[in-house]
Amino acid sequence: MTTKTTKSVLSLESINSNVIEAEYAVRGEIVQIAQKLAKELEMGATLPFQKLVWCNIGNPQILGQKPVTYFRQVLSLCEYPELLSVPEVEKLFPTDVLSRARQLLEQIPGGVGAYSESAGAFVVRKLVAEAIARRDRHPCNPEEIYMTDGASPAVHYMMDLLIRDGRNDAVMVPIPQYPLYSATLTLYGGKLVPYMLNESCGWSLDVQHLRQQLHTAREQGLCVRGMVVINPGNPTGQCLSLQNQEDILVFCKEESLVLIADEVYQANIYDDKKEFFSFKKVVCDMGLLNEVPLVSLHSISKGFVGECGRRGGYMAVTGFPESVTEQILKLASINLCPNISGQICCALMMNPPQEGEPSFELYEKEKNVILGSLKRRAELLVSALNKLEGVSCNAAEGALYAFPRITLPQKAIDVAKSLGKSPDWLYCRDLLQQYGIVVVPGSGFGQADGTFHFRTTFLPSETDIGLVVDNLTSFHTKFMVQYGGIRNTNGTHHLNGCSDS
Amino acid sequence: MTTKTTKSVLSLESINSNVIEAEYAVRGEIVQIAQKLAKELEMGATLPFQKLVWCNIGNPQILGQKPVTYFRQVLSLCEYPELLSVPEVEKLFPTDVLSRARQLLEQIPGGVGAYSESAGAFVVRKLVAEAIARRDRHPCNPEEIYMTDGASPAVHYMMDLLIRDGRNDAVMVPIPQYPLYSATLTLYGGKLVPYMLNESCGWSLDVQHLRQQLHTAREQGLCVRGMVVINPGNPTGQCLSLQNQEDILVFCKEESLVLIADEVYQANIYDDKKEFFSFKKVVCDMGLLNEVPLVSLHSISKGFVGECGRRGGYMAVTGFPESVTEQILKLASINLCPNISGQICCALMMNPPQEGEPSFELYEKEKNVILGSLKRRAELLVSALNKLEGVSCNAAEGALYAFPRITLPQKAIDVAKSLGKSPDWLYCRDLLQQYGIVVVPGSGFGQADGTFHFRTTFLPSETDIGLVVDNLTSFHTKFMVQYGGIRNTNGTHHLNGCSDS
Repeated sequence: MTTKTTKSVLSLESINSNVIEAEYAVRGEIVQIAQKLAKELEMGATLPFQKLVWCNIGNPQILGQKPVTYFRQVLSLCEYPELLSVPEVEKLFPTDVLSRARQLLEQIPGGVGAYSESAGAFVVRKLVAEAIARRDRHPCNPEEIYMTDGASPAVHYMMDLLIRDGRNDAVMVPIPQYPLYSATLTLYGGKLVPYMLNESCGWSLDVQHLRQQLHTAREQGLCVRGMVVINPGNPTGQCLSLQNQEDILVFCKEESLVLIADEVYQANIYDDKKEFFSFKKVVCDMGLLNEVPLVSLHSISKGFVGECGRRGGYMAVTGFPESVTEQILKLASINLCPNISGQICCALMMNPPQEGEPSFELYEKEKNVILGSLKRRAELLVSALNKLEGVSCNAAEGALYAFPRITLPQKAIDVAKSLGKSPDWLYCRDLLQQYGIVVVPGSGFGQADGTFHFRTTFLPSETDIGLVVDNLTSFHTKFMVQYGGIRNTNGTHHLNGCSDS
Repeated sequence: MTTKTTKSVLSLESINSNVIEAEYAVRGEIVQIAQKLAKELEMGATLPFQKLVWCNIGNPQILGQKPVTYFRQVLSLCEYPELLSVPEVEKLFPTDVLSRARQLLEQIPGGVGAYSESAGAFVVRKLVAEAIARRDRHPCNPEEIYMTDGASPAVHYMMDLLIRDGRNDAVMVPIPQYPLYSATLTLYGGKLVPYMLNESCGWSLDVQHLRQQLHTAREQGLCVRGMVVINPGNPTGQCLSLQNQEDILVFCKEESLVLIADEVYQANIYDDKKEFFSFKKVVCDMGLLNEVPLVSLHSISKGFVGECGRRGGYMAVTGFPESVTEQILKLASINLCPNISGQICCALMMNPPQEGEPSFELYEKEKNVILGSLKRRAELLVSALNKLEGVSCNAAEGALYAFPRITLPQKAIDVAKSLGKSPDWLYCRDLLQQYGIVVVPGSGFGQADGTFHFRTTFLPSETDIGLVVDNLTSFHTKFMVQYGGIRNTNGTHHLNGCSDS
């Protein structure tokens, strides 16, 4: 009597095609090959290198960056509050660490072992909001703040909210971009409307181009719901000008777009002439706070904090109707709550020790050592890259990455094509196999047609980065020889086509 | 020249309707009212009670349950490894804690501050796999294990994988169910095919009924992809019989269903005649390991561990083709990695101190105190509920909840209807407003038509639970009087309709 319709056998043919189509290059195929090589090395295999150098992802502590002492001391006491009662504790921890831990434990019901409110523990959101208010010199309400496990869940929430079934919904994303945006758009069934950053002009953003891209997309029947800005840029490192930020906000207002501002690199600025301004500050300064729906993302994984493994961050949501923020809260509540240690670390990052407090001096020293070293390493790497044949690289004004353009020999392009791969994939694969250096092909981030890049962090320690530069140089030279050089191909290029900067 | 199509203004009308339709009662409207009342109390308001009693969610540490010392000691050292080098450390921590922390820090590259592999740090997966192998007496490969931030992300991954656009995909879910399943199904655009648990027979599961429901769903054009089993049950607390488990596996094999086994309450069994068997063990015993795609979920939030705020858990995936597990890994990699402290805590939960180790005695004592107390509290609460007019409640064989059936006066049913609410919502709302006790209406979990329930944890401490029982009794009596009692309505009922148990 019962008729069975097709049974579903579990296979690539029977699962959600959005999942299959989603790509996330930062942990993509090159990284999977690297992980296999790492396991071979562990098993005693002989390879052309002794260890892998993980430049594929901003993960500083895996490359030896020391955690900031103050954060870890407070977190350690929050984990095991009994320590606060032993006589030795005064010898082991500074007094401001003890009082900060006591304050947090008093105000977080159940401590690190209990679910908090879904948006995060109230004291944490209050501390974060106060810090944002100090940073921007504009009020910030704790109710604007949603704590998250790193910045990634915030992007999921926004894509889930904005992308509707069968409505051709789309979001504008910079190219090159951090592939979390393309991946989540694909997962939720949305379309990516690209806007190109201008490489020849320091990866700057042209608002006129934004308008063109939006209108083209609309003519094609897409419903453009929002726009992603990454400032400072990832993988490109540029820091937006204030004028750019104002233009973007006017654009979003006029075109009724939600602005998703990825500001996770706000503490990583290396160019003394550049300054980070949050979109929250700019939108307030312009008097547009209630007219532009703005989601600002921050994270403890980047900056000099580098607490990637802890998964902490927040999103600050302004200009949304309450009926919609209630839906964000519901999405958060379906995940119960972000982990409490990550929440605490975020509150500490935003409220570090102040002058006069016992931990202040060490904290400042650790911060300045990390940031100073990152700046030196960025300059060393970019300068070395620019010395290579056919390679040009914009200065990293901010963030943790260099994104050099590489002009590849025609033979390399042909070989890659025959493998069904992009030419920059071939370059990165060979670099990995010959020197153990793990970088990500530019094609994983998007790039102008006919150009090739790779993204590398400058996170290897100052002792290691010289060797990385040397190995990269040796590899590049060999690669160019192996594939016959760049004579008769797309030629060298220069990054000096910028008229107004 | 450019024509603008409709602008999208941000409103309930313009966001993803799946998000709007998703419901998560455990943190739903009753809990939101409770949070407002809690804030009013904080501001000094006079209410009929002095504090809220949060029985809506399994969150033991917010109700005073002490964390297990061993876990917290190891985690505290992993947070701040410098402690391992101070002379006092030997006085502050047992030696097995020190060596466990040292071992984990050596084997987790970058410690708790670095992203791990997306599936989790290898040493953690290895420790978890070894523990599963010991539990089930069957081999377990670390590659089967994906660490997660609590069990919830695993449910997201599976729904995302199984539910395709426009294909009428569906998953079988028990009624009553834990509303994470209905919420994620709605979010990913899937359909819920219910199968009823038999309340009059201790919430048991009837495999013949499963088949009927499946065939009915298929006749309606649904493509049924998988089946959720919660064992021990949530909100129902029942522990499945081995025969039931075997039948379910045969059913999944015959009908090509993925089995999602929510086993997060596996350490919470209170009935001495009942025993927990994992579906992994049963599928191995039956020789069906490679024939039934099985996803088993576990978490550090439940059991006696109760580390909810840390967000740790794992899913063990067997019987899947490699092409599909690669897609799960990609989904995990888009989220970078689960938080490391949660991963470590999960490894510790699965590998507690052993007899002869310095921490063993305290660990066993803490575990037994918590589990013994939970058992007493469960019995006290269920027995008190069964004394109330028109209330009947199955014994809680496992998990953390009682799910009593309440027969409500017709007048209450009418009043609720006039408010556009379910009658059990009215009951829970009044209980909250009059006594500050927060429980969740049965309608949030699903229930047989015409029946009403609520879910309450038995997590208030032994000092508090007596008061909860007294207040619940007073409330219930008053409620029944207020609404005219249950004469002339659906009458009382008895839970003795079970023929074969």
